[in-house]
Amino acid sequence: MRQVAILGIGQIKIDEHWERSLREIGGDAAFAALKDAGVDKVDALFVGNMISPIVNGQNQLGAFFADWIGLWKQEAVKIEAACGSGAAAFRAGLMAVASGDVESALVLGVEKMTDKAGRDVTAALATAADADYELEQGVSFVGINALVMRRYMHEFGWKHEHFAPFSINAHANAVHNPFARLRERITLEKFERSAMIATPINLLDASPIGDGAAAAVIVPAEQVMRQPRILVSASAAATDTIAVHSRRDPLFLQAAYDSSRRAYQMAGVTPDQIDLFELHDAFSIMAALSLEACGFAERGQGVRLGLDDEISPQGRVPVCTRGGLKARGHPVGATGMYQIVEIVQQLRGECGKTQVEGAKIGMAQNIGGSGATILTHILRAEG
Amino acid sequence: MRQVAILGIGQIKIDEHWERSLREIGGDAAFAALKDAGVDKVDALFVGNMISPIVNGQNQLGAFFADWIGLWKQEAVKIEAACGSGAAAFRAGLMAVASGDVESALVLGVEKMTDKAGRDVTAALATAADADYELEQGVSFVGINALVMRRYMHEFGWKHEHFAPFSINAHANAVHNPFARLRERITLEKFERSAMIATPINLLDASPIGDGAAAAVIVPAEQVMRQPRILVSASAAATDTIAVHSRRDPLFLQAAYDSSRRAYQMAGVTPDQIDLFELHDAFSIMAALSLEACGFAERGQGVRLGLDDEISPQGRVPVCTRGGLKARGHPVGATGMYQIVEIVQQLRGECGKTQVEGAKIGMAQNIGGSGATILTHILRAEG
Repeated sequence: MRQVAILGIGQIKIDEHWERSLREIGGDAAFAALKDAGVDKVDALFVGNMISPIVNGQNQLGAFFADWIGLWKQEAVKIEAACGSGAAAFRAGLMAVASGDVESALVLGVEKMTDKAGRDVTAALATAADADYELEQGVSFVGINALVMRRYMHEFGWKHEHFAPFSINAHANAVHNPFARLRERITLEKFERSAMIATPINLLDASPIGDGAAAAVIVPAEQVMRQPRILVSASAAATDTIAVHSRRDPLFLQAAYDSSRRAYQMAGVTPDQIDLFELHDAFSIMAALSLEACGFAERGQGVRLGLDDEISPQGRVPVCTRGGLKARGHPVGATGMYQIVEIVQQLRGECGKTQVEGAKIGMAQNIGGSGATILTHILRAEG
Repeated sequence: MRQVAILGIGQIKIDEHWERSLREIGGDAAFAALKDAGVDKVDALFVGNMISPIVNGQNQLGAFFADWIGLWKQEAVKIEAACGSGAAAFRAGLMAVASGDVESALVLGVEKMTDKAGRDVTAALATAADADYELEQGVSFVGINALVMRRYMHEFGWKHEHFAPFSINAHANAVHNPFARLRERITLEKFERSAMIATPINLLDASPIGDGAAAAVIVPAEQVMRQPRILVSASAAATDTIAVHSRRDPLFLQAAYDSSRRAYQMAGVTPDQIDLFELHDAFSIMAALSLEACGFAERGQGVRLGLDDEISPQGRVPVCTRGGLKARGHPVGATGMYQIVEIVQQLRGECGKTQVEGAKIGMAQNIGGSGATILTHILRAEG
């Protein structure tokens, strides 16, 4: 398997882009990545997207974007794994380049979510869950996560306020990220006073949707001259039952455990060597569960990392260094590629006030559904 | 790049499976493929599907089916390229095995289309076209193909009846395929008297939808002991503009030309060495255009192969040997995998009355949209 490296990255600010279409926002990120890579063409395009068939009435985003971007004639395809679609597209692109069948690929994560009413988007997002056995009960996607959070608080004795550091850290970091949607600090008081969505998840436990697109150009490592060279040291994916109630332990992200362990092995690293971890904080409870499953905290103790101030860019386990899903925003099918792009920015040392000093190894973890599809990637700066 | 081979295949009869759910029909094909392969587990699952987010309210079919099939914990993802989703999933699986990152994969094409009213399905299928520039004009997917067919008849002087042999051949072959939806012969009279859908496309020019699922297990070639060994000699994908009106020549399938030429080169064959060609006859006009773009007929002369009786299993260029999209049926995201499965059946010599004598090399071509995404695969029997 050939070693693959990231040649260029691009992203747009996550926002309500009323004046821009799906193709325009995706194109903007793609053009930025091609420009950053210094190329105007690639062999193949891999698009990560979740809800455009429902919300935008558009399928076949591979050909759709190849056409718009000017990659006409090139191979192009869409990959979907709910909110894990971005990283799933990245992994599909990696396989194609690693196999030797293509010499370069553009991976684009894109989602245009704000063209429909909130209830329509909520219904679209619910397609990540099990339609027959979860949605049939009338539970929404946030509702499923609320059940998990409530159980976690009960089992391990945590209170709602103990989750605050995750959201406070994310918002504090987003202030310095021009591509983030919510660039404002929040306090513990504000966190606790925020409107309830599905008990115990309130507005500041939950990530905002948005229109977003992020992209990267990948090529065989030996073709990258730019310093530092950003290598993809590991790529691993795993699944769990799609319905949370089918799991032996609904408070353990088995697929995060499996994919992270495989990634550590591929990259030859241990969790303590990871300089930053862009985790999938769609809800604050997910941040805690990811930290535990990936070996950064004991079972039931993920929230302690926030309380002990270990998750800031200066901490032992920096997470959400550009705002995370919580404050950078969560344009579902694009999120996985934002994580990859942000790690590249950190490894290049381009993150200013939220720069993790001397960052050499970064890990991204993208989650589809309530832990059903989980992809873990480890990037390493060389030179 | 490692050579990949097909270890096992499975499929279900295409029909209106009112009593079976999406997961059940997909599971049936997957279990059949695993059984045929003689394995009960694979490293990864690749699912091809187009409209389940819209029609079934279900996304994340990778984890969804991994869970149902008992591949829990394994990597799983969905690939979508409109009606080309099946072959796109097959190609993604190939890349993963070829790269060396996984040792075995199950590729499943599945579509459950008949749970919604016809108008809802028509709307769902329209997402394959350009929502902003084609659908906005009020044209349906069959309407776009009707415009192409009318133009073709005008340019090259053919009449509607000249397309009849494609449908007559497809129906004649489907009679002998227990998995086909329409197992009945048709005549030229019936073809000409059939109800008009979108002039000049009538009911017998158009393929029927249906609930269907087809699957294959793929592994590195050296792991296959079974004779004959079915090698994947070539896999190629290409795109064209998503909107037909943007093409310089709307009567030429550029992406079929590009992907077939790349496939011929990879496999080291010329069109006259192809023993059978499972083409994408979603509409009779598409059969003609595919034959022309892939080098089996001159421009504007694709229909002549039917008129000259060259497309039957005994002909020079056998097409739709198991019924094709027209009579086997077209469960959109599953179709590409039906084509692969049917070629394996031919190369194994299991096709009875529609067996292509001594078939050693078969080609499958799966099309997304009106020629926007086209994938060509060449399979070869060895031993």
